[in-house]
Amino acid sequence: MPTKTPLIGIDWGTSNCRGYLLSATGNVLDHVSDPRGIATVENNQFQLVLEDICGDWLAAHPNSPLLLSGMIGSRQGWIEAPYCPCPCALESIHQHAVALPSDRLTGYVVPGLSAFGLSGAPDVIRGEETQIAGLAALQPGLTGTVCLPGSHSKWVSLRNNRIEGFSTFLTGELFGALCDHTLLGRLITNDPCSPHAFSRGLEQSTAAGGLLHQLFSARTRGLAGDLGGGDIASYLSGILIGSEIRAVAEQDYLEDTVHLIGGNDAAHRYHEALQSVGAKVTLWPGQEVTAAGLWLLGRQLGLCDDCPNE
Amino acid sequence: MPTKTPLIGIDWGTSNCRGYLLSATGNVLDHVSDPRGIATVENNQFQLVLEDICGDWLAAHPNSPLLLSGMIGSRQGWIEAPYCPCPCALESIHQHAVALPSDRLTGYVVPGLSAFGLSGAPDVIRGEETQIAGLAALQPGLTGTVCLPGSHSKWVSLRNNRIEGFSTFLTGELFGALCDHTLLGRLITNDPCSPHAFSRGLEQSTAAGGLLHQLFSARTRGLAGDLGGGDIASYLSGILIGSEIRAVAEQDYLEDTVHLIGGNDAAHRYHEALQSVGAKVTLWPGQEVTAAGLWLLGRQLGLCDDCPNE
Repeated sequence: MPTKTPLIGIDWGTSNCRGYLLSATGNVLDHVSDPRGIATVENNQFQLVLEDICGDWLAAHPNSPLLLSGMIGSRQGWIEAPYCPCPCALESIHQHAVALPSDRLTGYVVPGLSAFGLSGAPDVIRGEETQIAGLAALQPGLTGTVCLPGSHSKWVSLRNNRIEGFSTFLTGELFGALCDHTLLGRLITNDPCSPHAFSRGLEQSTAAGGLLHQLFSARTRGLAGDLGGGDIASYLSGILIGSEIRAVAEQDYLEDTVHLIGGNDAAHRYHEALQSVGAKVTLWPGQEVTAAGLWLLGRQLGLCDDCPNE
Repeated sequence: MPTKTPLIGIDWGTSNCRGYLLSATGNVLDHVSDPRGIATVENNQFQLVLEDICGDWLAAHPNSPLLLSGMIGSRQGWIEAPYCPCPCALESIHQHAVALPSDRLTGYVVPGLSAFGLSGAPDVIRGEETQIAGLAALQPGLTGTVCLPGSHSKWVSLRNNRIEGFSTFLTGELFGALCDHTLLGRLITNDPCSPHAFSRGLEQSTAAGGLLHQLFSARTRGLAGDLGGGDIASYLSGILIGSEIRAVAEQDYLEDTVHLIGGNDAAHRYHEALQSVGAKVTLWPGQEVTAAGLWLLGRQLGLCDDCPNE
């Protein structure tokens, strides 16, 4: 039985690269994870690195097209795929894809999206638009709020197959900076996540005085022995994620079901925090959603053998 | 004319040491600033470092007593002077001073204070209690809110010669961590403070979405060219100080006059932020207040020649 040419989908971010070999019907035939994020690629050698990461697939399927999402389409990436402004229909994203600047490889880079966040300031996403397309592929017509935890957490409004807008929160990156580069972090020992300390942090995030005051309690509780060294990181995480959830709860982000994308520890902590404020949450596995999004956009771009629009 | 023995007052913090040679009537006869904060002192050699910093004064006035305030009285300092719980009468602080563990030097270490902050968590100050005693020395009977900007900014309620309580905010240290250790900081160039960008940050701190979302706008405005590299640090400072001021404004901290202690750039930024929310502010020079506090506590401890209680 002849094999149809698969699609190679690549989620290429700042600090890592994940590849998916996708059948014409969207099945993940193979996958790869590589630490060579775009920040590690020197002298614009993106094509060589990509051919190395996907070497086996390209050898077996030399005509396979590629579809790349994430920071690879930023100004620091291989080729810039400009941001599409929101509101943005999911079926129009692929129209703004940019062809790969290559004479050996065929394919496209997915654009990011721009919007004005809750604060009224400009906001951007790159990579998350593909995951949201994946949600729509897995459950057509899905509506609600999409939460994508990370260094820069994203909250996205999805309605009638359109991304209405989104807001970014610095939660994950700020957590790292606090643990690694402030006095708060000096008391931290490398113990596993403490669910109890995380809950205490969530509770602290609802106290008076605001985030900058609440954070200092990690130090004083640590000095007083009220929090052990193994508890402080979880406690800080609770304060930060709790603060983020409170901010979105004050807007209309939690009125619909929250579709929480992820499969790591952070997603579980967001799940707990969202449940603590009574939100209705559906958890989606991040890599599955990404692969589904790359496949859907690939179909729309005519990169899959059985694409209906070919 | 014989000279009375002066008092040597030392404000010894984590990252620097400031000394004052004080006459019996509280005049600053001489002063010194030294980068050897307690964090730089190895093997508990505090006495040797102190004798080096104050060598000229000790040679001229070998019988001068010393009074030390700040982190020198912490567990990481020379000798621990345990925290006094608030509410705490200003005239009782000196009763908790701890004698220097020295056979060559005479004097005391001032204790810190403890309280429960706005969030309900334990909170501590060390060094600021001496500055507040200094305010009371400069203007007896002074009442209101005292704001002490810094890495860990303090807001203190002072009433009827008592410190009623206080709250700490991580503002200064978080600013440093954001500028030096996050993606936000990568766009920053070393330009002087931009008052216009600071004002824009203050305004952003009142927008929807909370601090974690507001901070991300420093990145997006930077990428969009809406903020230049020289503006981003000032803008971030505005968001953080604005957030702190908003949090205290939601409590009763701004109902009285705010006595703002400092004389550096940070104090001027706090002044502007406080004026922007209509607070009544009095600015006090930090080193003058510290010297006055060391002198007042020294008098109360009987370390000054003309002390009335000797």
